[in-house]
Amino acid sequence: MKEFLVRVVVEPKPELLDPQGQAVERALVELGLKNVSQTRVGKCITFRLKAISASQARQRVTEIAQKFLANPVIERFSVEVEEL
Amino acid sequence: MKEFLVRVVVEPKPELLDPQGQAVERALVELGLKNVSQTRVGKCITFRLKAISASQARQRVTEIAQKFLANPVIERFSVEVEEL
Repeated sequence: MKEFLVRVVVEPKPELLDPQGQAVERALVELGLKNVSQTRVGKCITFRLKAISASQARQRVTEIAQKFLANPVIERFSVEVEEL
Repeated sequence: MKEFLVRVVVEPKPELLDPQGQAVERALVELGLKNVSQTRVGKCITFRLKAISASQARQRVTEIAQKFLANPVIERFSVEVEEL
């Protein structure tokens, strides 16, 4: 068994409005960061996971993220797996 | 000017309790994902930024994240910059 650092990023779908992202974008511009666009605010779930391989870890996490971590009606997610 | 995809991940500091992370970890275990540990739930702010270079983009975002995106008393953050 190897140990992996897994990160699941859950964001509002691109076609949906993200009021929190819009508020952050306005604030970034006011703070002097020009040329900002497409700001989205999401959740980030990070954990360590023991698994046989990176592909097995990714597959198991993806199955669970689909059911539990993301709401597929309004959110999309990505899974990142890095060996420790 | 080049365009970069910037992601700021804001998480509770490792030395602090993260009740939301603990709740997610229990749920992951109940859903069959054994060998999970150190689960943390954070915010993830993603945006596009035009800048001269990746290092300039990273420096400007780090300055603003310190002041505005993270609460340094209870949170830590990391900045990822990827050229588009």
